[in-house]
Amino acid sequence: MANAQSNVAFRIKEFTGPKGIVKVEEPISQPRAHEVLVRIHAVSLNFRDFAIPSGLYPFPIKDNVVPGSDMAGEVVSVGEGVEEFKIGDRVTANFDQTNWYGPQRNWHGALGAPIDGVLQQYRVFHEIGLLYVPKHLTYEEASCWPCTGVTAWNALFGSVPIVPGQTVLFQGTGGVCMTGLQLAHAMGAKTIITSSSDQKLELAKKMGATHVINYKKHPDWDKVVEELTDGEGADHVFDVVGVNEIEKCFNSVKQGGVISTIGFLGGEQKTHPNVPLLALTTGAILRGINVGPKQLHEDLLRFVDTNQLRPHIDKVFPFEQTKEAIEYLSKGQHSGKIVIKVSS
Amino acid sequence: MANAQSNVAFRIKEFTGPKGIVKVEEPISQPRAHEVLVRIHAVSLNFRDFAIPSGLYPFPIKDNVVPGSDMAGEVVSVGEGVEEFKIGDRVTANFDQTNWYGPQRNWHGALGAPIDGVLQQYRVFHEIGLLYVPKHLTYEEASCWPCTGVTAWNALFGSVPIVPGQTVLFQGTGGVCMTGLQLAHAMGAKTIITSSSDQKLELAKKMGATHVINYKKHPDWDKVVEELTDGEGADHVFDVVGVNEIEKCFNSVKQGGVISTIGFLGGEQKTHPNVPLLALTTGAILRGINVGPKQLHEDLLRFVDTNQLRPHIDKVFPFEQTKEAIEYLSKGQHSGKIVIKVSS
Amino acid sequence: MANAQSNVAFRIKEFTGPKGIVKVEEPISQPRAHEVLVRIHAVSLNFRDFAIPSGLYPFPIKDNVVPGSDMAGEVVSVGEGVEEFKIGDRVTANFDQTNWYGPQRNWHGALGAPIDGVLQQYRVFHEIGLLYVPKHLTYEEASCWPCTGVTAWNALFGSVPIVPGQTVLFQGTGGVCMTGLQLAHAMGAKTIITSSSDQKLELAKKMGATHVINYKKHPDWDKVVEELTDGEGADHVFDVVGVNEIEKCFNSVKQGGVISTIGFLGGEQKTHPNVPLLALTTGAILRGINVGPKQLHEDLLRFVDTNQLRPHIDKVFPFEQTKEAIEYLSKGQHSGKIVIKVSS
Amino acid sequence: MANAQSNVAFRIKEFTGPKGIVKVEEPISQPRAHEVLVRIHAVSLNFRDFAIPSGLYPFPIKDNVVPGSDMAGEVVSVGEGVEEFKIGDRVTANFDQTNWYGPQRNWHGALGAPIDGVLQQYRVFHEIGLLYVPKHLTYEEASCWPCTGVTAWNALFGSVPIVPGQTVLFQGTGGVCMTGLQLAHAMGAKTIITSSSDQKLELAKKMGATHVINYKKHPDWDKVVEELTDGEGADHVFDVVGVNEIEKCFNSVKQGGVISTIGFLGGEQKTHPNVPLLALTTGAILRGINVGPKQLHEDLLRFVDTNQLRPHIDKVFPFEQTKEAIEYLSKGQHSGKIVIKVSS
Repeated sequence: MANAQSNVAFRIKEFTGPKGIVKVEEPISQPRAHEVLVRIHAVSLNFRDFAIPSGLYPFPIKDNVVPGSDMAGEVVSVGEGVEEFKIGDRVTANFDQTNWYGPQRNWHGALGAPIDGVLQQYRVFHEIGLLYVPKHLTYEEASCWPCTGVTAWNALFGSVPIVPGQTVLFQGTGGVCMTGLQLAHAMGAKTIITSSSDQKLELAKKMGATHVINYKKHPDWDKVVEELTDGEGADHVFDVVGVNEIEKCFNSVKQGGVISTIGFLGGEQKTHPNVPLLALTTGAILRGINVGPKQLHEDLLRFVDTNQLRPHIDKVFPFEQTKEAIEYLSKGQHSGKIVIKVSS
Repeated sequence: MANAQSNVAFRIKEFTGPKGIVKVEEPISQPRAHEVLVRIHAVSLNFRDFAIPSGLYPFPIKDNVVPGSDMAGEVVSVGEGVEEFKIGDRVTANFDQTNWYGPQRNWHGALGAPIDGVLQQYRVFHEIGLLYVPKHLTYEEASCWPCTGVTAWNALFGSVPIVPGQTVLFQGTGGVCMTGLQLAHAMGAKTIITSSSDQKLELAKKMGATHVINYKKHPDWDKVVEELTDGEGADHVFDVVGVNEIEKCFNSVKQGGVISTIGFLGGEQKTHPNVPLLALTTGAILRGINVGPKQLHEDLLRFVDTNQLRPHIDKVFPFEQTKEAIEYLSKGQHSGKIVIKVSS
Repeated sequence: MANAQSNVAFRIKEFTGPKGIVKVEEPISQPRAHEVLVRIHAVSLNFRDFAIPSGLYPFPIKDNVVPGSDMAGEVVSVGEGVEEFKIGDRVTANFDQTNWYGPQRNWHGALGAPIDGVLQQYRVFHEIGLLYVPKHLTYEEASCWPCTGVTAWNALFGSVPIVPGQTVLFQGTGGVCMTGLQLAHAMGAKTIITSSSDQKLELAKKMGATHVINYKKHPDWDKVVEELTDGEGADHVFDVVGVNEIEKCFNSVKQGGVISTIGFLGGEQKTHPNVPLLALTTGAILRGINVGPKQLHEDLLRFVDTNQLRPHIDKVFPFEQTKEAIEYLSKGQHSGKIVIKVSS
Repeated sequence: MANAQSNVAFRIKEFTGPKGIVKVEEPISQPRAHEVLVRIHAVSLNFRDFAIPSGLYPFPIKDNVVPGSDMAGEVVSVGEGVEEFKIGDRVTANFDQTNWYGPQRNWHGALGAPIDGVLQQYRVFHEIGLLYVPKHLTYEEASCWPCTGVTAWNALFGSVPIVPGQTVLFQGTGGVCMTGLQLAHAMGAKTIITSSSDQKLELAKKMGATHVINYKKHPDWDKVVEELTDGEGADHVFDVVGVNEIEKCFNSVKQGGVISTIGFLGGEQKTHPNVPLLALTTGAILRGINVGPKQLHEDLLRFVDTNQLRPHIDKVFPFEQTKEAIEYLSKGQHSGKIVIKVSS
């Protein structure tokens, strides 16, 4: 499928789900000054990659956008004035191509929405948007960190950095939580994770969970957390459900601790907690996480490199089956990352 | 009224408001090892000093408690093993006598509730609970910082420290906000403050407010803040209203900024904002503030000393009129601190 | 002198001092992708701008380099893909064009050495190397901050941030120290400054110095600092002399305080202090400062903007008298910045 | 030897080395208000415990001092007003009994010099000077952390906190370095350690060293570090030698990295490096470490607890052989901690 003269890309023609995505063949763009042409080898998917083509994404998107934000590839040519990269370098890209340090400023540079993403064979990047990939990782493995990895790292280090030895609570076994678990465990944190599935909790234990809680068996999982932490609560909490369970998150957090709110899997707002009052009585912090800047991404990849971490990959699809991969993602039956092998 | 042999104290006999407070004469307690006896010269009041005798305080209180948390006085005798203080030293006390560094752990040591406070002539303190008072302040002035001052300082420096030059938004002209305004202005921050009273806004301008907003004239004050900050929002927001105005606070905060939630003057919950979603879309932090540890109190008093700051005192009452002072406080007509002169 | 078709630049032909600099007329470079063409209005000088043409600079320099690192100008055209700036924007440049956040990585991007600097009428910059200039400043004033300002800000906020209210000691009245004094004063720090000239100390007092020390009259100025700080020492010390006075800096710093080492005006090493032992007995930090990243530069300019600060300008030279300006700089008789007006 | 009515203690009668230490029998002190009586079970030794009786310690010491700073024991009675501890609690003590947070202020409260230490069966402590011991540790193991552990933790987290994944270089295999290695490894850092002994380097590898360097075979170990870090240098360096090798430490540290200076094993100053200039060219931090405050000690013990770490103990001596243990310590042939079992 690879062809030196052309680039095969997936583009969203209609926001009707995976079936609205079409495969197109286009000329390969050439890098201008300060730009780098990357041959994309692998792409990993996030829930957002289903939400965007399905019209469920509440942010602006350009027409005919190429979806996908997480990739690993190799540099195949460089524009004038490029200083950091050379042909043959193995690279990945930051989720937001215009967020290098500090908080997110806007969403102008987020890959896959609003701007063209990585579900294509070749893509030109500004050199500042790229990072080196740890040597021990295959392209498939290297494609797994930009979204879930940086989000988890940002939750741990973004504003009130975790101190190794502290306790981190993960709400569920989704991508950000499982990656967060892996990271937190490798830096010497105590970890507690919840799930409705004993099977997923078994997997979590293998990945280093100190304690696991089946929230079907323990709907009052906040009380279990309290017991497991000698009544103190967790120092850091990963909230992926949002408002409907936020009160339990506050019940589970230590005085002065941090709740990182990452998602809103809980759907429609069914409860009406007085969140400022919860913050006041716990002295805790509630912080929204929007992936993160390149600076945190660099720290993450250094950590992955030092600890020779590998992501947990659920399944690898060939590039031709990109739509099937997104369908598979939408089922939510996977545990770990879904990867598309773009070229070999 | 002062008498070397006895201590005159106000104690709450019934939680029926100021009239439930009685004046008692008791023997003066003597300092044990590591303790210091302080002759209290002045006490400043906070809203809590009305809420506690009125039965409106939602936390445990010991029987017959002496109300009041903020005082300045002089050391009149020291117990064995005291290293830090000597007779004649001018001192103030930390709000929570058991919170020296890090987040609040519990409320066991908060003066005035649950433990005996400072509306009395003499009180024994553990030496660790005391701090030196800046030299340029009278006792009346020195009594004004423990509660409002430390709360404001904690909001600015407690977890995500303000960088001088940033913008701070103050919601209203209450004690914490006016003190915060004074502090933020003296450290080179841009300040915006809201009020329903042009007169209070005039005072705020004199105290250094860069911009003022009358929220009666501009009920959409969040939009005014947006304009005043070139569409970026404030880096730090002091929220004293709580849930009913929290959405406007999120509208007014910068991407990645900090909202410090300090009070719940807004009363009953009338609105049902999805706060985790607001945090997610702004990448902002919502943080509950519970006064603060001695470490921050030391930093505050050094700042007050360096900048020769003086509090804005509304009115000074004699000790005998303590109940009248609390009545006056409850009217909410004051602007600045209400101080009780305990002894001269 | 301005000419739409050509760029007049000063280039170092021989490293023989100002006389080795020649004026050349060249075509104006055009911005490539992600680049911006700036018409330079004003340049301020630093000691380095004399050291470089004089062959005294111990780092690599490209041939025929254009000297000068600090400028303010306006955007006159933008290349493809530029997002941040548009024609007419008033801008300044970061000292190191490749240092955006975190510590200095190398010196590849420092303006004036190794790469072409700003003593020319037009220069193309990568858009990431530019920053907006505060509105209240003229071009002459706006050109004064990149080197001395960012160095001073980095000393105060780079790794162990100053807490307003702390004490900062400035060794001498050179550019970095006077700028640091201005900044520290405006953020509510206590400031102590030394000089051999009572006249310069008078100026320092006007700029907000809390205490001044004439080190000719008090060669044991470290003991004076000790007295002025109640035996505790200063929290932050600006060291511009280097090894020959470093012991006095350690005598003047607080337990756990920070000494920022900025220059080596002391010349040849005449003393042999055991610096690690001095660090050990004081628990202090000695930190080398290399100007700083764009991130700190942004914070500085926001602070300058909020506080409407203006630099202290000693003298403004016309562009034609650039060599005379560098000669004047080399005499060391100035106090404040020397500025070259490149175009009007 | 234990006797409910009396306390057996070792006291320094003459500063002539271990032989100047005498065993005395004294009444057991009783705890006053806020104090706790601890029955000491185990004491671990540090080099200082030889230096003090030998007259080599350059700080004030009270007459007839009891040496020893690191202990673990159990609470046997509590004074009035004690809130944190009860009889039976297993505790350890902070090295400096008056340093709770922030930098060391003075040395008034350091155990073993100037004040009475822990080489005795019973000692009264202020409750604020005590900490809980992790449950998985024996008393012997629990006695090993106060000095070397807190020093290592302070180097890693005291002012510029390590980010997991960074590289830490340890100069030698002494107590602080081996403990630091264990901690750094458990928090996911890359570690490099030097020694003159291949045997000790083997042990270091077992404890998790990523790279080891025999500095006898590689006197230019700084160049080896450069290679092992791709030319970048280590983020954190533990310097235990002091001035004579400090230049190599600066050669080994990353731009903007941290050198923690901990000891002066190098003896007399033989070299005269220009340390401020080294700091300037590397942009690095040199920081002196003086054990550390209780706050860091708490963080350390939480980390030890979470990761179920155990110290490497070289040898355990019975209480009667305290002098022999100090003699053994002075030989420097041990690797790991020397512990004295005070009571069983």
